[in-house]
Amino acid sequence: MKQVEFWFDFASTYSYPAALRIEKIARSSNVPIVWRPFLLGPIFKGQGWNDSPFNIYPAKGNYMWRDLERICGSLGIPFRKPSTFPRNSVLAARLACSFAEEPWLAEFIRETFLANFAHDRDISDRAVLASVLEIVGQPESVIDLSQSPDAKTKVRAATERAMSLGIFGAPSFVVGSELFWGNERLETAVAWARRRD
Amino acid sequence: MKQVEFWFDFASTYSYPAALRIEKIARSSNVPIVWRPFLLGPIFKGQGWNDSPFNIYPAKGNYMWRDLERICGSLGIPFRKPSTFPRNSVLAARLACSFAEEPWLAEFIRETFLANFAHDRDISDRAVLASVLEIVGQPESVIDLSQSPDAKTKVRAATERAMSLGIFGAPSFVVGSELFWGNERLETAVAWARRRD
Repeated sequence: MKQVEFWFDFASTYSYPAALRIEKIARSSNVPIVWRPFLLGPIFKGQGWNDSPFNIYPAKGNYMWRDLERICGSLGIPFRKPSTFPRNSVLAARLACSFAEEPWLAEFIRETFLANFAHDRDISDRAVLASVLEIVGQPESVIDLSQSPDAKTKVRAATERAMSLGIFGAPSFVVGSELFWGNERLETAVAWARRRD
Repeated sequence: MKQVEFWFDFASTYSYPAALRIEKIARSSNVPIVWRPFLLGPIFKGQGWNDSPFNIYPAKGNYMWRDLERICGSLGIPFRKPSTFPRNSVLAARLACSFAEEPWLAEFIRETFLANFAHDRDISDRAVLASVLEIVGQPESVIDLSQSPDAKTKVRAATERAMSLGIFGAPSFVVGSELFWGNERLETAVAWARRRD
C-alpha cells in the first residue's frame, strides 16, 4: 500500500477543505498519509507572481471565493472569508515542519486552518498560534523552538522538494511518482494509492 | 429543472473529456444541457497571456498532460497528445455557433474534439473539419455557410457573454447564476441543476 503525501500551504484556500477531510478519507481507505507543509510564495515567485493568482486575476479570485463557500457548505465545514488574503503562513509552516513527528500535528494543522478560514484570525500572529497550540495541549514556548535555524531550513527544504516534484499549487497530493492537484482530486489520489502496480 | 450550460473551447484540453461524457451524465440525471462554444484566446489576452497558461507555466503544463492522460485512461477515452498546442479553434467554433440548433451538433462537437485530442489532427484545417462533417452526414459546403459575418458575430458574442459570466477558463459549467470550472466539476454542476431552490 502506497502513502499519500498531502502538500499544503496554511494560506491556501482549497487546502482548507482538503486538510479537514483528508484523515477521515485516508483512514477509511486504509491509506497512510504524510502531512507536507510548504510555502507557495517562492513557487509563485518562480512563476513571476508576487501575490496569489487569486488576487492577480480577479475573475479567478471571484470564482474561487464562491466555489470555496459552496464546497464548505456541502461538506458542513464552517467558512468565513478571511479579511486578509493570503495570510503570511511562514510561522505556521515552521511549526508544522518542526513538529512533524508529534501526535498533535494533525490537530494543530486543522485548527490553524480553522483559525484562518473559519474564524478570520491572523495566523502570522504569535498570539493566534499560541491559542491554537493551547487547543492541542501545547505551551506557547513551542513557538520559540520552531524559530531555530533548523526549522527554517526544514521549511526551505520542503518548498524546494515541492518544486522538484513539479508542484505548482496547493493542495497537491503525491502518490509515488504521480501528482494530483486540487481539493477535489483527493479521492483520486487515495484511490491511486490503493492500485496494484 | 435547471439546465447546465457547457462552455468550452475546441482547443481546451480538459474540455475534451467533459465534451465526451456530458451528454450521458446529463441524460441519466434528466438535466438539459446547452452547448456553449466560445474562444479562450480573447479571455487569456485579457489576463495578459498571449499563449495557453499550460505553455507559459511549464510545471502546470507538464502536470496537465499527465493528468489528462490519466483521466482519459480511467474513462476509457482515446488520447494522443496533440503535436501542436493549442490548436486554432476559430473555424470549429464558428461552425458550432452557426449550427447550434442542428441535430448533428453534439456529434460534430465530439468528433472535432476526437480529431484534436485522439487523432492529432489540425482542427483549423478545412479538410479536417470536412472529414468531421462527413462523419456527421454533412457536406463540406457547410463550412462556407459558417464563414458569414453573422457566424463571426455569434462567436464574438459568445466569448463576450462568457467574459460577462466571469468565465476565465474551460470547461466551465453555468447553472443559473452559479459557475463551475473544470472537467471534474461536471457532476457537481449537474447535481446543482437538480437542487430545489
